[in-house]
Amino acid sequence: MEAQGWIVSFAGGEVRGTQPSVEKLGLKAAGLVELAQLGVPVPEGFTILTSACEAFQSADGWPRALTQELDQAVTELEERTGRTLGDPSNPLLLAIRSGASVPMPGMMDTVLDLGLNDKTVRGLAERTGDPRFAWDSYRRFIQMYGDIVLGVHHTRFVKAREDLYGGKPLEELSAEELAKLSERYRQVIATAGRTFPQGPREQLRSAIEAVYRSYNSHRARYYRKTHQIGDDLGVAVTVQRMVFGNRAESSGTGVLSTRNPKTGEPGAFGEWIPGAQGSDVSRGGITPAPLAGDSTTDHASLQERFPAVYDELIQLGERLEAHFRDLQELEFTLENGTLWALQTGPAPRSAQAAVRVVVDLAHEGVLSRQEALLRVDPAQLERMLRPIVAPDARRRVLATGLDASPGAACGRVVFHAADCQELLEKGEPSILVRVDTSPEDIQGMTVAQGVLTARGGQTSHAAVVARGMGKPAVVGCTEIQVDYSREVFYAGDTVIRRGDWITVDGSTGQVLAGQVPMLAPEADSGAMAELLDWADQEARLRVRANADSAPDAKRARALGAVGIGLCRTEHMFFMPEALRAIRKMILADDPWARQRALNDILPMQRAMFADIFREMDGLPVTVRLLDPPLHEFLPKRDEDISEVAEELGVRVEALNARLAQLYEANPMLGHRGVRLGISTPSVYKTQVRALFEAACEVTREGVQVHPEILVPLVALPEELRRIRDLIGEIAEEVLSEHGIRIVYEIGTMIEVPRACILADELAENSAFFSLGTNDLTQLVYGFSRDDMNKFLPTYRREGVLRDDPLSHFDAEGVGQLVRMACDRGRRTRPELKLGVCGEHAGETDAIAWFHEQELDYVSCSPFRVPVARLAAAHAALKG
Amino acid sequence: MEAQGWIVSFAGGEVRGTQPSVEKLGLKAAGLVELAQLGVPVPEGFTILTSACEAFQSADGWPRALTQELDQAVTELEERTGRTLGDPSNPLLLAIRSGASVPMPGMMDTVLDLGLNDKTVRGLAERTGDPRFAWDSYRRFIQMYGDIVLGVHHTRFVKAREDLYGGKPLEELSAEELAKLSERYRQVIATAGRTFPQGPREQLRSAIEAVYRSYNSHRARYYRKTHQIGDDLGVAVTVQRMVFGNRAESSGTGVLSTRNPKTGEPGAFGEWIPGAQGSDVSRGGITPAPLAGDSTTDHASLQERFPAVYDELIQLGERLEAHFRDLQELEFTLENGTLWALQTGPAPRSAQAAVRVVVDLAHEGVLSRQEALLRVDPAQLERMLRPIVAPDARRRVLATGLDASPGAACGRVVFHAADCQELLEKGEPSILVRVDTSPEDIQGMTVAQGVLTARGGQTSHAAVVARGMGKPAVVGCTEIQVDYSREVFYAGDTVIRRGDWITVDGSTGQVLAGQVPMLAPEADSGAMAELLDWADQEARLRVRANADSAPDAKRARALGAVGIGLCRTEHMFFMPEALRAIRKMILADDPWARQRALNDILPMQRAMFADIFREMDGLPVTVRLLDPPLHEFLPKRDEDISEVAEELGVRVEALNARLAQLYEANPMLGHRGVRLGISTPSVYKTQVRALFEAACEVTREGVQVHPEILVPLVALPEELRRIRDLIGEIAEEVLSEHGIRIVYEIGTMIEVPRACILADELAENSAFFSLGTNDLTQLVYGFSRDDMNKFLPTYRREGVLRDDPLSHFDAEGVGQLVRMACDRGRRTRPELKLGVCGEHAGETDAIAWFHEQELDYVSCSPFRVPVARLAAAHAALKG
Repeated sequence: MEAQGWIVSFAGGEVRGTQPSVEKLGLKAAGLVELAQLGVPVPEGFTILTSACEAFQSADGWPRALTQELDQAVTELEERTGRTLGDPSNPLLLAIRSGASVPMPGMMDTVLDLGLNDKTVRGLAERTGDPRFAWDSYRRFIQMYGDIVLGVHHTRFVKAREDLYGGKPLEELSAEELAKLSERYRQVIATAGRTFPQGPREQLRSAIEAVYRSYNSHRARYYRKTHQIGDDLGVAVTVQRMVFGNRAESSGTGVLSTRNPKTGEPGAFGEWIPGAQGSDVSRGGITPAPLAGDSTTDHASLQERFPAVYDELIQLGERLEAHFRDLQELEFTLENGTLWALQTGPAPRSAQAAVRVVVDLAHEGVLSRQEALLRVDPAQLERMLRPIVAPDARRRVLATGLDASPGAACGRVVFHAADCQELLEKGEPSILVRVDTSPEDIQGMTVAQGVLTARGGQTSHAAVVARGMGKPAVVGCTEIQVDYSREVFYAGDTVIRRGDWITVDGSTGQVLAGQVPMLAPEADSGAMAELLDWADQEARLRVRANADSAPDAKRARALGAVGIGLCRTEHMFFMPEALRAIRKMILADDPWARQRALNDILPMQRAMFADIFREMDGLPVTVRLLDPPLHEFLPKRDEDISEVAEELGVRVEALNARLAQLYEANPMLGHRGVRLGISTPSVYKTQVRALFEAACEVTREGVQVHPEILVPLVALPEELRRIRDLIGEIAEEVLSEHGIRIVYEIGTMIEVPRACILADELAENSAFFSLGTNDLTQLVYGFSRDDMNKFLPTYRREGVLRDDPLSHFDAEGVGQLVRMACDRGRRTRPELKLGVCGEHAGETDAIAWFHEQELDYVSCSPFRVPVARLAAAHAALKG
Repeated sequence: MEAQGWIVSFAGGEVRGTQPSVEKLGLKAAGLVELAQLGVPVPEGFTILTSACEAFQSADGWPRALTQELDQAVTELEERTGRTLGDPSNPLLLAIRSGASVPMPGMMDTVLDLGLNDKTVRGLAERTGDPRFAWDSYRRFIQMYGDIVLGVHHTRFVKAREDLYGGKPLEELSAEELAKLSERYRQVIATAGRTFPQGPREQLRSAIEAVYRSYNSHRARYYRKTHQIGDDLGVAVTVQRMVFGNRAESSGTGVLSTRNPKTGEPGAFGEWIPGAQGSDVSRGGITPAPLAGDSTTDHASLQERFPAVYDELIQLGERLEAHFRDLQELEFTLENGTLWALQTGPAPRSAQAAVRVVVDLAHEGVLSRQEALLRVDPAQLERMLRPIVAPDARRRVLATGLDASPGAACGRVVFHAADCQELLEKGEPSILVRVDTSPEDIQGMTVAQGVLTARGGQTSHAAVVARGMGKPAVVGCTEIQVDYSREVFYAGDTVIRRGDWITVDGSTGQVLAGQVPMLAPEADSGAMAELLDWADQEARLRVRANADSAPDAKRARALGAVGIGLCRTEHMFFMPEALRAIRKMILADDPWARQRALNDILPMQRAMFADIFREMDGLPVTVRLLDPPLHEFLPKRDEDISEVAEELGVRVEALNARLAQLYEANPMLGHRGVRLGISTPSVYKTQVRALFEAACEVTREGVQVHPEILVPLVALPEELRRIRDLIGEIAEEVLSEHGIRIVYEIGTMIEVPRACILADELAENSAFFSLGTNDLTQLVYGFSRDDMNKFLPTYRREGVLRDDPLSHFDAEGVGQLVRMACDRGRRTRPELKLGVCGEHAGETDAIAWFHEQELDYVSCSPFRVPVARLAAAHAALKG
């Protein structure tokens, strides 16, 4: 540690001074320092702490004191390595890496081979006796420095190379050719009006400044904003002696995952490229070989080539995983047969892997079950439950690439990240198709449904980022050719244009034509089921599902729902036969015709209830009485009106007249829910009768039914009282007809602000409250879900509103009314059951908040049940 | 007082026993007892207290103890009058009247001449030497008893008379003819299956029971329900010796008002009918003569015929008014030259009279100013401000009748009370046209806009009830002929059918064809202005007006508004030139075209603001920025779309495309208010610039401006902060251009539930809150004003909801959020100004509640300003 204490030095087994916090070191350096302390071979180096970056930002420039500290650190490093910066006879070459205390893509990442210039390149050639290696390193350095530090776009270097040598692979260029290429690269930089500095100390300082500037780049700031990271953390810069993977012999670079980061399966997993430096792997230009087993690429696996090194690497991985208690990803370089660790950290992993790893680690005794639960982000679990291509779907395979990030996604093809945003604003899904991706594409990837690249491996930028985001991705799909200028890609004979629909299946690597039917996956019976069992043991908040049919109910139960929290009876009415009957009911001229239509509806509704009760044997089923306004069941367009009129045998004029009568200026605030129940009691009576008849039927079969009847849209205690009486009468009637006793409960939706205010009175006639946060949010804001897209994009873009309150629960506003409803309801009836059935019931943050309010359950879509179970456990463990 | 203490006896100057409370006596008897104590000549009698009625109701029949008490009271009365019930030689005849402790029409009112039978009628003829009088009394009694006690409809008696004597007037029938008529009347009763009892004591008991039954009649219960009177008050029955107005000579009956009940002018006012009994006046069959002055009827005025009696009557009226400290209405009978008071009480009066009387009484020192204020119901004042026919309107006079109840009303003609209700449910106004009205019509009159009768005088049922309700009425319009069977009426050559529009002008007595333009009247400069001045001295809550134009502002100021609480800037845009400009703005293809359109709007809006500021010199003007969604300014129907497209020079397709873009499923919850302000700031900028330019312009003229700028539909504190900044920038810009300093305030509407919840944060950027209770009520209930008519009628009919929460403030539900907003707002900013600008701002009960919440002002339509001023004074005086 020096004067300002801005720099800390390290080498394998040794760290100078006390170890600073991860906030000061950044994640990368903290990993290196920890590796050094563990005695793992890391190249000697030092780290400039984040506090220097802060000084740079606040002083609006390079801090003078840093020059002195930096000089001293370099001198020390020269002493420790026995090499000297800029000394042609024995040059010290440096690797510069940046890293903050939280992952923060979008900043300058790495510059290698720093210290090379026209003189030292020759010294290096002489000293190593490998001029090809020296010149290759130099041209790499110029290109990387030009691109990253000087801002000369890397395509200009690619073009210069192609001008000079056409398509000839770099590996085939001779030392002389590479020397000529270096010269040409320096011309590229000069043509761009920039200067490539020959002085190694100037190179170093400029590289560090470039890191600091990139910290404030648009991309980095965007990333921090979207990930809710403050702008004041700063970035640390690590300077290390270069080790060379791009030596002619016994050299290479690679990445080791201590377990499979896609599946979580035990056993090392990774890739390497012989004769390459680390940056080659992640830039996607070269297809790497696997670490072990048979290689399908041009190169052999590391195990085949260097079995001893491979063993050493595997042992190192085991040590690291035991030490860090998590799946590690280790970047390594092999230099002339010597293994060097470049960095390690928790491996980015698929959701499936995340679950598998923590469950295995818990079984191995490394983690407690509680730790295991807390290690998995519920959002990750949600990604795991992303739709897959339906097994029976017809697949028209356009091409196959690498299965980089699981799940399937469907959208319109775009070729530029900005177009993803544009489609999003139109409410359309997009698939981003690129030759390969770079940090400029992150913003687009965030909003795209999925990603497809023509190049790159499982650890390419596209693959790593997509997995982190849980975005389905197919990468390295060499069968396609992307033409940016015409905005098309070719797959065999097929031309796919911008705007065409495709489906990418990140689980198989297939690229499919059109919109392919998808399925939500079942929770697997393995690690996830086990983890969720543990979750249920910790959670206090129970998880039910919203399900309107027997198949939904079955799926919900399979995913661990402990009941149905919302069965929307009207969903049945959208099936053809039922729709016909309900339309007849609506168009009935007199009470008798209406009753006849309702008599037709009764057996259908009864059968639906019976099927659901059977699936949910022993569990509660909350049935909501008819909610939408009647006009929702009638056709709106002229051609449909004629058709329906003919089908029902009524005159078009009569149908139009009824439509005019039912027209509402604001249907959301209209004649629906309990208002229909009071104005046309025969509808609710029919539904209640169907429900109790179904309950009797299945009870006779030995099924245990626990019906809970839910009255929607209540604003007045008197509304609830009347419907409660109506339900009681019909129930009494049916149950005595059948001679069966069934215990049932009546409850009210709390979805209108007035219901929150008068919750104490409502609780008098309500055994449970179901909080309908969708409608409640709309009414509390005065927003309509159908119309808010008119201004919400502006609001979010301008920062007036951070999140759509319909997807992200508004605890600050809506939450106060929810709390009022809960408090007042319980004041009247301490045993009142409280549940949430709005969209927010499946949202992690909202679940934590509902847990705090001591609610009894949330009810979400079947697909989100596992997420909610885990989130409920998190809430309990953190609470 | 007897065993149960159910009966109290009285006569002029004497009351036996201690005086019971008015609750026990009922209003009528209490008046009689008080008159007796004052020594006013009232016919001897006794009152059966309301407690006996209660005993009847609860015991489900006639209480035995009452028989004994009643016998004793009758015996006493016989002793005091020297006559005997049922004694043919000297029969005691009785008048039976009912009355509760609050006015309660719809019950059995009066039975006269009780005690007559086939024997006593002859005794009466002999004893009076006036057989015609005796037989006329007998046929009256049979008819009245048959109708009221036995339930034989009175038209059957009328028909029997016409069968016998055709159209020959009753006055021209001889004693023999009347005897024959009595006989026929008894046959009518027998034909109806009822029995006319000959025993006077049986007659008495049946009459009393009829009163008790009528207390539970549908009409009486309906009246109590609509007037929020409990069902447990009971009714008292008063039994008095008959005095006869229908003697041949020096007899008659009439009503004296101590002041003019229509205008409130000092000086006695009233009518009489020579040779008639009291019931003749109010049943509308005979047109009475005035008490004083020239008579235009067949009879002379009382003053002309019996000047001494007239003087006695006037003196009696003066004594009574001084005693009761209010305008009295005295029913009297003149029997053979002797004046008898039948009852007295506060006279039903027009709103104008109510105001004039209390102001005069305060000047006369009879009432304090506070008492005077509390004597006038603000609702009454509202009626006074009912629209009148516009002075310059073309009047097509169909007929002219009596100006029974002032104000003008316009509606569709109906002939049956039930039809008024039916039209109301369709949202259509009705005028009830009847030959004359009876208590069955009360329900219809309540909901009709106005009343027209062919028969009856100023004190007929129709006139009295209409005045009480403040309903415009023309009565005794003998120029029309009503044909119920065909549902038409004839006026000269014109046939008016059910459903036709007419206008009744209750201030002139004219019946006008069609819908005639009307005007809201100015507060008169006399009594009302004085009373309202006193009101302002008592009130704490100030009253502003909602006004969108200079003429509105002027009217508001004339009616006493102390500022404009809501100026809706969009109202200007419905004028042709402005509408054209705003449509251009909406249809603009690019920001430049939009700005050009806004540049056209600017001077118009500026001129409007300047005119309003001039009218409101020295008073605050609250300007609300644009509130409605933009599509409200565009045409909706195909033909209008073509026309507007042509006018603006755009293609129909372009206009349709924009309409489709702006379409909203729920416009009430849509893209409007501050949401427009944020998404299209140029509109608000233009409005704010226009406002400040206008303010500068009038300031230079010497006008004092106090602009308050109101931001609508705020749900997020951030919305308000942004618009506050926008206003501040433009204000700064304009004021520095003009070199003028103007103090202004920025405030927010509180009309979205979330604004109530976050009122503490909103108050940080808000100098005032304007509570928009219209939108707030809709959102709290989840009702839409435009759609609630779909279920509200059912809700009210079934008693689920008593009042429409949009016209009657919901303190129980909405009130809790309003209180939250006020409390939280003031917590942040103790000096926060709080006002209400919803419809409820003019509602009496709501004003009392707003007063309790210590709000600063209410802002209502100009027309309701006087009502609100008086209501505010009431709130302060009662608080």
